[in-house]
Amino acid sequence: MTTTAPDTPAAVALEAPPVFRFGGSATDGDASMRNLLGGKGAGLAEMSSLGIPVPPGFTITTEVCNAYYALDRTYPDGLDASVRAAVAATEDVTGTRFGDPANPLLLSVRSGARVSMPGMMDTVLNLGLNDETAEGLARRSGSPRFAYDSYRRFVQMYGDVVLGLRPESDTAADPFEALLEAKKESRGVELDTQLDAEALRELVGEFKDAIRSGLGVEFPEDPWEQLWGAIGAVFSSWENPRAAVYREMYGYPASWGTAVNVQAMVFGNLGEDCATGVVFTRDPATGERRLSGEYLLNAQGEDVVAGIRTPDGLSIGDGAAGTSLEEIMPDAHRELVEACDRLEQHFGDMQDIEFTIQQHRLWVLQTRSGKRTGRAMVKIAADLVGEGVIDEREALLRQEPEKLDELLHPNFDPDADRRVIATGLGASPGAAVGRVVFSAGEAEEWAARGEQVVLVRVETSPEDVAGMQVAEGVLTARGGMTSHAAVVARGMGTCCVAGCGALQVDYDAGLFSVEAPDGETVTVRTGDTISIDGSTGEVFLGAVELTEGGLPEEYARLMAWADAARRLNVRTNADTPEDAARARAFGAEGIGLCRTEHMFFGEDRILAVRQMILAADEAGRREALALILPMQRSDFEGILRAMAGYPVTIRLLDPPLHEFLPQGEAELADVAAALGVTLEETKRRVEQLHEFNPMLGHRGVRLAITFPEIYEIQTRAIMEAACSLAAEGVEVEPEIMIPLVGAESELERLRAQTTAVAEQVIEERGVRPPYQIGTMIELPRACVVADRIAHHADFFSFGTNDLTQTTFGLSRDDAGRFLPDYVSQGLLPRNPFVEVDADGVGGLVRMGVERGRSTKPALKIGVCGEHGGDPASVEFFHGVGLNYVSCSPYRVPIARLAAAQAALRGEV
Amino acid sequence: MTTTAPDTPAAVALEAPPVFRFGGSATDGDASMRNLLGGKGAGLAEMSSLGIPVPPGFTITTEVCNAYYALDRTYPDGLDASVRAAVAATEDVTGTRFGDPANPLLLSVRSGARVSMPGMMDTVLNLGLNDETAEGLARRSGSPRFAYDSYRRFVQMYGDVVLGLRPESDTAADPFEALLEAKKESRGVELDTQLDAEALRELVGEFKDAIRSGLGVEFPEDPWEQLWGAIGAVFSSWENPRAAVYREMYGYPASWGTAVNVQAMVFGNLGEDCATGVVFTRDPATGERRLSGEYLLNAQGEDVVAGIRTPDGLSIGDGAAGTSLEEIMPDAHRELVEACDRLEQHFGDMQDIEFTIQQHRLWVLQTRSGKRTGRAMVKIAADLVGEGVIDEREALLRQEPEKLDELLHPNFDPDADRRVIATGLGASPGAAVGRVVFSAGEAEEWAARGEQVVLVRVETSPEDVAGMQVAEGVLTARGGMTSHAAVVARGMGTCCVAGCGALQVDYDAGLFSVEAPDGETVTVRTGDTISIDGSTGEVFLGAVELTEGGLPEEYARLMAWADAARRLNVRTNADTPEDAARARAFGAEGIGLCRTEHMFFGEDRILAVRQMILAADEAGRREALALILPMQRSDFEGILRAMAGYPVTIRLLDPPLHEFLPQGEAELADVAAALGVTLEETKRRVEQLHEFNPMLGHRGVRLAITFPEIYEIQTRAIMEAACSLAAEGVEVEPEIMIPLVGAESELERLRAQTTAVAEQVIEERGVRPPYQIGTMIELPRACVVADRIAHHADFFSFGTNDLTQTTFGLSRDDAGRFLPDYVSQGLLPRNPFVEVDADGVGGLVRMGVERGRSTKPALKIGVCGEHGGDPASVEFFHGVGLNYVSCSPYRVPIARLAAAQAALRGEV
Repeated sequence: MTTTAPDTPAAVALEAPPVFRFGGSATDGDASMRNLLGGKGAGLAEMSSLGIPVPPGFTITTEVCNAYYALDRTYPDGLDASVRAAVAATEDVTGTRFGDPANPLLLSVRSGARVSMPGMMDTVLNLGLNDETAEGLARRSGSPRFAYDSYRRFVQMYGDVVLGLRPESDTAADPFEALLEAKKESRGVELDTQLDAEALRELVGEFKDAIRSGLGVEFPEDPWEQLWGAIGAVFSSWENPRAAVYREMYGYPASWGTAVNVQAMVFGNLGEDCATGVVFTRDPATGERRLSGEYLLNAQGEDVVAGIRTPDGLSIGDGAAGTSLEEIMPDAHRELVEACDRLEQHFGDMQDIEFTIQQHRLWVLQTRSGKRTGRAMVKIAADLVGEGVIDEREALLRQEPEKLDELLHPNFDPDADRRVIATGLGASPGAAVGRVVFSAGEAEEWAARGEQVVLVRVETSPEDVAGMQVAEGVLTARGGMTSHAAVVARGMGTCCVAGCGALQVDYDAGLFSVEAPDGETVTVRTGDTISIDGSTGEVFLGAVELTEGGLPEEYARLMAWADAARRLNVRTNADTPEDAARARAFGAEGIGLCRTEHMFFGEDRILAVRQMILAADEAGRREALALILPMQRSDFEGILRAMAGYPVTIRLLDPPLHEFLPQGEAELADVAAALGVTLEETKRRVEQLHEFNPMLGHRGVRLAITFPEIYEIQTRAIMEAACSLAAEGVEVEPEIMIPLVGAESELERLRAQTTAVAEQVIEERGVRPPYQIGTMIELPRACVVADRIAHHADFFSFGTNDLTQTTFGLSRDDAGRFLPDYVSQGLLPRNPFVEVDADGVGGLVRMGVERGRSTKPALKIGVCGEHGGDPASVEFFHGVGLNYVSCSPYRVPIARLAAAQAALRGEV
Repeated sequence: MTTTAPDTPAAVALEAPPVFRFGGSATDGDASMRNLLGGKGAGLAEMSSLGIPVPPGFTITTEVCNAYYALDRTYPDGLDASVRAAVAATEDVTGTRFGDPANPLLLSVRSGARVSMPGMMDTVLNLGLNDETAEGLARRSGSPRFAYDSYRRFVQMYGDVVLGLRPESDTAADPFEALLEAKKESRGVELDTQLDAEALRELVGEFKDAIRSGLGVEFPEDPWEQLWGAIGAVFSSWENPRAAVYREMYGYPASWGTAVNVQAMVFGNLGEDCATGVVFTRDPATGERRLSGEYLLNAQGEDVVAGIRTPDGLSIGDGAAGTSLEEIMPDAHRELVEACDRLEQHFGDMQDIEFTIQQHRLWVLQTRSGKRTGRAMVKIAADLVGEGVIDEREALLRQEPEKLDELLHPNFDPDADRRVIATGLGASPGAAVGRVVFSAGEAEEWAARGEQVVLVRVETSPEDVAGMQVAEGVLTARGGMTSHAAVVARGMGTCCVAGCGALQVDYDAGLFSVEAPDGETVTVRTGDTISIDGSTGEVFLGAVELTEGGLPEEYARLMAWADAARRLNVRTNADTPEDAARARAFGAEGIGLCRTEHMFFGEDRILAVRQMILAADEAGRREALALILPMQRSDFEGILRAMAGYPVTIRLLDPPLHEFLPQGEAELADVAAALGVTLEETKRRVEQLHEFNPMLGHRGVRLAITFPEIYEIQTRAIMEAACSLAAEGVEVEPEIMIPLVGAESELERLRAQTTAVAEQVIEERGVRPPYQIGTMIELPRACVVADRIAHHADFFSFGTNDLTQTTFGLSRDDAGRFLPDYVSQGLLPRNPFVEVDADGVGGLVRMGVERGRSTKPALKIGVCGEHGGDPASVEFFHGVGLNYVSCSPYRVPIARLAAAQAALRGEV
């Protein structure tokens, strides 16, 4: 152990001075010197040179670190003198002296490589304490307990990090902690904080004894010996196994070295002329331009966080209780305001600043970009552009697109009382309060008489859609982020908590029970009020107060910049005119996916649909389809009209037919009666349609191969609607989409059939609206043979939900049992149903795009899976050259922003 | 219409003579002149030059065809003279004369391009007939009906093809057919054959009238005018739209042209000195080297086929009834024997020859390679090699590998009485006779008391495996070629008819009923005897007589050549020592897939398995696994011992756990009792394990991520078995295979876990058998990221069953409802579960191989899906560079042969 820097003849010549000072009037470094000073050292130098009052100190360079290793863990020539000079300068700035019992300078000694390596290397705090200076600290602070607690922590940290007194094995107790425990026991207390100054002083002695007996060395009372020990320890920690493995993992070379930052410790608890606090340079909730923060007099930073005392507001008139800092210490307050201004200007963003005032002097301990709400995120960025601090590009890149959600949905008042009784998945954002119902029918009934309801189901099925539509929110016991409930609710913008496994739902009794986090079993019956948070997944008993969303005026400005920057078009997935109109208001440029199956569930048509499915022959199917045709036509008229001027991609019927069949005896009897066959026969037909793996079954284009009349009628309904509107002068662009195509031959046949029907309608109506025929690319095979499929397609639309299921061989309905383990254990970086799996699924998407465009270079290609609204996925789709993404209405703004960011990042 | 060849000055100089003769002593062409003479003309020239008595005639070259078009559909200089000379030569050979009423030469005029274009161009038969020669033919044949039927056919054909009297529109009636119908009506008969000579003679007149009134031309009575008309028509048909489209489709240039073949017609029905027959140069059933055939005196070829008269045998002593040709026409017989010898020698294969004897002269009309049984296929090829006619390569390429199946299974005696009551899918070849049972339990019971049973089920599940093992055959009402029943039966070599949808199975009543093809409803009860044919899918009532299979001695010789030729290794899929031993006898070089799940169903362990699945925690699972470990170890010992010296790939547990759970109340109660929990609780657990899409669910490596202890115990069982055997000196090569890997991280983790367990066992046992750890590649994602997965794999094994399911998004359990339509309608060339889909699935396989080997160039790669036994798929796998294929034991010989063929074809 080297206690002073031995001035050995330097075998290594340094190019830069070995020590750079910061704080006070002299600052040697700046932000550009990250490689030499490390990230932390360069940051401190930068702040210091801005005139920010950072606690003074100095950085020993990374070059010295390399020299230290080159010289076999000794220091280069002249380091000792430089360090001594720098400590003296530090003393001058603080007005304290290193080792002075009357007014001791205490130091922190920290590592700092050019990149952050959190927790990998060593740190020593409160350096400079010994029996004499500790007593001095006790006097100055008026708190012997504080002084001796700092002292015992220092001895413990120094004993471990510098001297190396550690547990003998992985399972053995830490020797210092053992002494601490023994002390607590002997004093009959349970918490460290219950030990008084005397006990802590005793502990310091016992710690030193342990060091002596354990290592055969004395704990150094000399502050200089302490300092050189700590510097050596920090340099040595660059090569500890933990750090070496970390560097290896990230590919950082050992030659970078670490710097050592030696900095004065400052204290906010040395008297009534001291304080500590935090400040945001703008309001983190609203984005308003005003300081927002709080402080405590004569306190340490931990006291603010611990919440034992109530902090006061900073400025006069900022509405906080108590006496403001401005009143008590007007000079320090003015300095703080100036520092805030300067830091925000410099970093170009709202800052979250920690400060300490020691004997009326302000010290800024830390500054960083402040966390903020979605509303504040938008307002601050737009304001900063207005103020000329940043440009539009920077404002856009600063946004977290997901946070826009907060602006688009109501939220619970953060200050409202609440009792959480369970937590599921936040499956569709928003907040809902309503009375519990357990069936879609009830939901409709109750809503019809003006009740706000929350629909609670074990899981939902397409039959529940009407009930979901009228509910304030949906809560399910089963299913993940891509379960039926989650997907449909997101599409509707309805708040949904899914997969809340703790609920025991009893439909018969009309209740659910749940063991609340507090251990009590809560029973909730039909009609009881609950609240659910679709972002956090929390379920609350009773009504929690809501705040309305509403868009700040800066939103429009920001989105206009985004629209100018992005290359990707953004469409929406919408099945109703209402959804289409809502999405249009959110900026959607067309519909990328209009599912026709949801339309089949309408009360007025489900019976006809079932008749069609259970018909014995084509004639029977055509008879039932003839009933459906006019309804479908009016559906399409509504949607095409709502999206006039934009393309509307309509997917022909996709799900396996059995999804439309009822399970209940009564409904089966209805169908049997409508078909004029026995209930037994109907049950037999239903049984025949059962599938082992419906996801891989008789659905999509396969239905049309077996029952061509279904797509024929749907095509007719689309084209009749388009012709009617075109005759009215409404601009329509229907795009007819054939799902689940895996082979060229399928699309070839369906294109011919679809074209024939379309042309026939055009001839009948005497008006020719433009129309296109394309296909979903949602099977791995379709990606592989995309060049052939492209011959028959006017457009491709990637169905990345199903493509993810087939590429991974992963049913999203069943993945809930193991996929969370995969993500939590790091086997997959994220849920691939949320963020597109760029390596696997993305590889096939890329192949599909390349091969499709090898046949038709201008082929229009989009994506209509849930991924279309996920920012990371949007960036991927931008990268592979898609023309558009399509997502649920409420995610359209998010996608617009993400598309802009992707385009801006791509430009660099 | 040109009636004689106008000797216009030829604008086109011909390089070759315009006409080549064949038949008789002068033959101008040979087989090499296919481009000039067309395929048919070159073949006739070749036969003729071999001395085979083909009906004489001549070929007008393709060069003339081109000249014909160049000269605006006129003939080049000198063609007329050449044709006249060639007709004269033909007359000389036949002893008849063109247009001679007493003994007329009749001609056929046919097209013949260098490639076969079946049905695309025109043909005229019986040319040379007119009122006079028809009467002559009637006299010579003694059958005016024959003469006038030939005449009316000629007029009809000539009127259509040459003169162009055709229906006025696609929907209008053919004018000649209309007259024929009218004639039948006026005579009060229903069939053409019921019209007598007089009626046919009248019809000729009416046909001529129709030509006159319809076209304003006379039917030409002059044979020469007839001939030039027919030649012109055949040349012209080269440019008819049908032929042009066909050429376009196959990329054949118009410049090839067609030749015209003019050939004497010969008749076997001109008297008792005439005959007609067919002959195989070897026995097509056994392959024995002896002529095998039959003939009819004074008859036409159709008469032999029609079966109205019973044909006689050809040679003395060949066992057929009646008087042999050898006795009646010894000279013609001798000529026939010589022709057979010469043709077989020349073509190097057993020939199927049609011949006609006209007035004691033998004419060979056609020869082609003869169809044969699998047994004959093997024997003939081997014999021909022994005789020096062909080499081993040729012998191997001649084999149809699928036909080996016939040798490996018993078959029904083709002459036995039988009554088909239903037809399903021939799912596992062979023939079975037995008494019907409806449950696996019954099957075991009855078999135990010595009964032969056929197990009849709606469909089978893993619980039926023991019953299937003891049954002679399995018959299911549901499921396709890759259903559980089909796959398991093929593995066992048990005959199976699957998906016999007509069966109405009533388990409660212990019967099935079916509407037989004859319309009768047949009811079959427990204990009744049926027979099933696993190749044709037929189900017979009662016992049908069997012939035993047994391998001819030539088989071994042929397979040895195959083994020398192939590059692919052939392994087997086998789950038991018995299967392994059987496959080894069939030539398997290891096990490519040993499924461990079938072992879990043994009666002695299923309860422990269920305990493991339903256990509440890891401790419970480990407790149950501890019971299973010794049983698994002994399973693996048996299999490794049976395959000693070869690698054995063992797949760790793959299916979703719910597959092991019982459905019945009683069995559930057993499990509940074993677990010490209530029946209700057990049912709840079972319900929890339910999956919507089990194929895409919690299975394969995903089980091991959730419950690592399962694979741990399996690995321990494998390694303990391997160590025990190694200690005994048995050579073992276990390959531990992790199924359903989709991400590198999965295999990385499992490799670490598996290695740890294996090394621990090795340390415990003090013996180190070689072992490897690899993975199945059966998900599209695994193919895409194969380069990364390869880092952790010693081998890849493509699971093309599941890969086909995921690539197509097609559940093989559910595909039965639409996949047959896809194949029958030509949307897919073949069932992709039978022959690997080279474009789609194959594209991913190729990617997986390339990427895997990009990481590890020597990576061992095989395939263990059902495709490993399909010859076309084996060729594909050879082409992409796999190391081995693996298939069910009974398909091992087929795969060996297919692999040899692939290698030999690849050499060219």
